Parts: sequence; C-alpha cells; structure tokens
Amino acid sequence: MTATKAFAAQSPTSGMAPHTIDRRDPRPDDVAIEIDYCGVCHTDIHFAQNDWGITEYPVVPGHEIVGRVTAVGPEVKSFNVGDVVGVGCMVDSCRTCSACEAGLEQYCSEGMTSTYNGQDRHDHSITFGGYSERITVSERFVVRIPEKLDIKAAAPLLCAGITTYSPLRHYGVKAGHKVGVIGMGGLGHMGVKFARALGAEVTIFTRSESKVAEAKKQGADHVVISTDEDQMAAAAETFDFMLDTVPVQHDLNPYLNCLKHDGTHILVGLLEPVEPPVEAGALVFKRRVLAGSLIGGMPETQEVLDFCAEHDISCDVEMLDINNLNEAYERMKKGDVKYRFVIDMHTLKNG
Amino acid sequence: MTATKAFAAQSPTSGMAPHTIDRRDPRPDDVAIEIDYCGVCHTDIHFAQNDWGITEYPVVPGHEIVGRVTAVGPEVKSFNVGDVVGVGCMVDSCRTCSACEAGLEQYCSEGMTSTYNGQDRHDHSITFGGYSERITVSERFVVRIPEKLDIKAAAPLLCAGITTYSPLRHYGVKAGHKVGVIGMGGLGHMGVKFARALGAEVTIFTRSESKVAEAKKQGADHVVISTDEDQMAAAAETFDFMLDTVPVQHDLNPYLNCLKHDGTHILVGLLEPVEPPVEAGALVFKRRVLAGSLIGGMPETQEVLDFCAEHDISCDVEMLDINNLNEAYERMKKGDVKYRFVIDMHTLKNG
Repeated sequence: MTATKAFAAQSPTSGMAPHTIDRRDPRPDDVAIEIDYCGVCHTDIHFAQNDWGITEYPVVPGHEIVGRVTAVGPEVKSFNVGDVVGVGCMVDSCRTCSACEAGLEQYCSEGMTSTYNGQDRHDHSITFGGYSERITVSERFVVRIPEKLDIKAAAPLLCAGITTYSPLRHYGVKAGHKVGVIGMGGLGHMGVKFARALGAEVTIFTRSESKVAEAKKQGADHVVISTDEDQMAAAAETFDFMLDTVPVQHDLNPYLNCLKHDGTHILVGLLEPVEPPVEAGALVFKRRVLAGSLIGGMPETQEVLDFCAEHDISCDVEMLDINNLNEAYERMKKGDVKYRFVIDMHTLKNG
Repeated sequence: MTATKAFAAQSPTSGMAPHTIDRRDPRPDDVAIEIDYCGVCHTDIHFAQNDWGITEYPVVPGHEIVGRVTAVGPEVKSFNVGDVVGVGCMVDSCRTCSACEAGLEQYCSEGMTSTYNGQDRHDHSITFGGYSERITVSERFVVRIPEKLDIKAAAPLLCAGITTYSPLRHYGVKAGHKVGVIGMGGLGHMGVKFARALGAEVTIFTRSESKVAEAKKQGADHVVISTDEDQMAAAAETFDFMLDTVPVQHDLNPYLNCLKHDGTHILVGLLEPVEPPVEAGALVFKRRVLAGSLIGGMPETQEVLDFCAEHDISCDVEMLDINNLNEAYERMKKGDVKYRFVIDMHTLKNG
C-alpha cells in the first residue's frame, strides 16, 4: 500500500482538510496515476456533507480526474507510464451483465463502483476520489486524454461533459433539431456546446432576464425567459429535445409543452420525485417522452474526449488552489462559478 | 341534410336515449356509412356524463364504428358503395402539419377533430359519433375492414386495438423482448394479443391472486401479482417494456423498477397528473423512458386491421342491444365486461 496525501471530509460538518489515505499497489490490470487536476462537481459537496445519508467518512471526493500514468500492472495493454489519462465517475462494474457488455457500465445490473464512497469489488475497501496525489484504477475505467486538449479544461469532461454528451448522442441529436437546454451551470453550458457541435439549433431557457447576456455568451442561438408566459407560449410545440440539467425539483410541464410530438425531455440533473407531478396527458396527447440519463459508459467517455479534441470544445473552468476548497464549495452553493472549478492538484503539496 | 336516428345523452344525468340528429350530405371527399356495429369505450361514459366538463349536449358517443358504404362523394378514390369500412376516434385534422404529413393525424398541431363532441372544420357543427344509424366521414379517416375479420369483433380494434398496437410497433417490440401489461380490460387484453403476435414474452401484472386464471386465459405467458413484494422483487430489472393501460392514478415506480436499463414504460390510459410522483432517479440511473401514446394515425389504423386479419386476432366482445346501453354503462363502471361491449346497431330500429 502507498500512503497518499489527500483532501478529505471527516464528518458532515468538518469541511475538507488534508488527510493521509492508503492507495493499493497496482493489481495486474491496474493503472497507477499521479493526479494533476480534478474538477469539482456539486455531487462532491453532497457527499462531503452527507446530504444523501450515504457517506462513509473519511470521504475523498473528486471524479473528474486528469493525471499521468506512473505504473501499470502486467496485464495492462492500452496505457504506458507517462500517458496523460483521465478517470471519471466509476472505477469498476461487474463487467459481465448486458449493460457492461454493451459498454454501458454506468447501468451495471450489480451497480457500478463509484470513484469515491464506493466499495471496491475485491478487497471491499471504500474507494477514494480525485482530491488526492494519486489514484489506482483498473485499465477498463481509464481513458486517454487526447493531446490536443488543454488538460486542465479536460477534467470536467469526465462528468459534466459526458453527462450531457451521452444523451444527445443516444437520442441522435443532429442538424435540423431544435434543442432546449434548461439550467446554465456546469452541465448546461456543456450541453449547449455539444448540441451546437452536433448541428442543432440551441435555445437556453432561463428564469431571469438578467441572465440573457450570459446565455448568449454560452453560445445559445436563442434565449427563452421561462417565467414569461408569452415567450413560453411562442415556444410551445417547437422543440425536438429538452436537455434538463436542473438538479432540484421544478415543474416539468411547461417544458414538456414546448416539445413537438415525439419530442424528448431528458433529465440529467434531477434525482428526486418529480414534483409538481408530470401531466400524463402532456405525454400521451403528443407521444412525448420523459427520459433520464446517467453519465456515460467507458467507450462513450473516450468518445466525448475525442469529440472535444476534434471540435475544439472545452469546459469553461476556474482554477483552484485546493487549500481554498471550502470557500469554493460556498461559492458553488450560490452558483458563483463559471462554470467549473478545477483543482490544481500540485497545490496539495503546499497544504 | 339527412335526419338520422341515434342514441344520445341530453344532459349529464339523462342517460342514453333515442334522439334524431342531422347527418350532412356527402361532400366531395366524403364517404356515407350505414353503421352495423359500434364498440363501447369507457371514454363514451366520460362524455355522456360530462366527467371532463367539455361535453356539448346532445352527445352521440361511439368511436369504434363498423358499417357499409352507402354513398361516396365524387372525389372519393378508395371506397365504393357496399364496402365494409371502419371509423375510429377521429374524423378530420389539419392535414398539412408535420404530424399529419407523417400520417400521425392524432398528433395534429391544430388538434384532430374527434369523431364525437368535436367541431367540424368546415361548418363548425358538433360531430356525432357511432351510436347512430349512419355517419358521414371524409375518405382519409375511413379504413377498410379486411374480409377475413369478424366485423363485430373488428369494431373495438378502432380504439382499444390501435391504442395498444401503435406503441408496441412504434417502439419496435419483437421476439426476445419481455413485455409487461398493466391492466386487464379492453386495452390490456388487446395489448397481450399484439405483444404475443409480435413475438414478445408477455407478463400480465394484476393486483389480485383471484385474477391469475383470467390473466392466463388472456394469453399471458406469466402473471405477476403486483401487491406481492417477493414477486415484484423477482421481476425487478427484467422487462423491456411496460404497456400501462390503467386509466386512473397509480404508482408507476414499482413498475419502472421492473424495467431493465433502457426500458420503456408506455402510458396509454392515464391522462391525469402522475401521482404518486415518479422518482426521477428511477429514470436517470437506468436510462429508462416514460412515454405516452395516443391511438394511432390513419395508415397505422389500417395496418392494425390488416395485422389482425393476418394473425387471426380479434377483440373479445359481448354483443349489446342498444336499448340496454344504460345497464351496460353500469356494468362497465364495475369492470363487468370481457372485454368490450359492441352494440348491434340493428337494434336501434327497435328502440
């Protein structure tokens, strides 16, 4: 085992602070990675604070990890020491169920092993994430970072990026489609970039007039103020897809009404009960679809990185000294980041 | 105009009784039909009683209509006097929107014209349905009843049949798929027949052990008692599709949990708010889909009739003297019909 310096929360109220954890020695199919950058996802805050009641302390969050390979096990075929690689939201799965065989490890019938706060399938230890000097991960769950990408801005592609890219690809978004993006955060701004790169006409839905300029800056072709009844009436039955990145309960019905017949509303942020309730008639009378989507499988996670390299897409990031992480969490709670904090993990040495 | 004998409700509480209505003389593209049989849909009761607050009295229900052509307008190309034909839930639409152009007239952007209690697009009169001696309908909304079909049992195919056939076809149900059917009424029993004919393995979900024998009789391969926790746990993540024919509010979450990743829950009966609320996580964590579907377009309505002729499928019906209609409504409210009443319209002459 390797003693490793990491940033961890020790309790729901302790805040993030330096901690020493053990990383396993590489197994035959493992890749050992020294971490350079790690994106900060809102999920990290939920786990640090035990908002969902499932946190095992100490918790080392972080599942948007970019670094360099420092060692490989004897069975590793695709990576060599020195390669620039990434690790996203999962580090293992059963590998044999129909989902895993289809490269959709996130839907593994046994449940994927999360990058942090998950349970290792071999030694049953709790997994530690990317707020750390290093991580050791099975080859199948490691992706290659294309040379053309700015590796700092690549980190959030491993969660915010793949989460929005995967459903747009799954549902075949292309030129001629009209896509609405709900929510202007880390996920939303990536959704706009991908939908545009796929050729779609993109509209951002926002509640406030004050955010119109920012929405345009994100690259949207149009902006609809969702609280303006006239604008929403004009948008009725005109969209093929809604990409809904809002992570808190909200009324889906006004957005469903904006979909054409056979239109699809895709939830990627909401995990709670859908309240206020969806009107079944809004689905039945226009054959609309309400769908969910979770990150993406490993082949598609590699694909999104390659797609970003090809289309010159990156996440808008603000670099962060890990010693300022607790303040960053407070800013994120207020939506005060455009659009993703990325921890420069070299600052951990100074902690 | 032609004075026509029909059965109508005059008020929410009057019950159905004989009445005289006017039928228009055929327009150039019209087909005049003498009605032989008309199925009784639960929707008819809702309109007769004004349950949805949108009934225009007098209302002549009936949208599962089979009869013989007695006259055609000069522009009619596909039908001749004497042809055995059917009319379903709609008699007109805008014919120019993208839905109409795709043969999905039920999703017409201007709204389809319902067979009864709709407003005629030309003279703005209120449409009268199939509890009547005759009906006059534009050619596009008339279908041919294949010779091989028993025309009495064919009537319900025009609503209960197409409503369940259309989504199974739209979503590509085929051999190798596992389909759950929720609800054992007019729609449910047709859903079982179609899913089996398409090659799927079919399970009926029912709340009561007492209905298992009936479910098997409907042709289901398996029966799951939805109130039995062990049976529901065993069914978890094993279905590709759920065809949900239940027309009243019910908890979808236990059924969503029975779907594999990428499984689809199709609502064809529910029009109200989805309560208890759907768990967004049930959609997101397995990329499941909640969809709606409304009857079918005209090409597909012809297709379902041809499919039934080819596969020797018909609706299980109980023939009804129209003078007993009010009693039939009371029996339907108690679920006491297997599975569809069909009015023998010749009994109208005795009324």
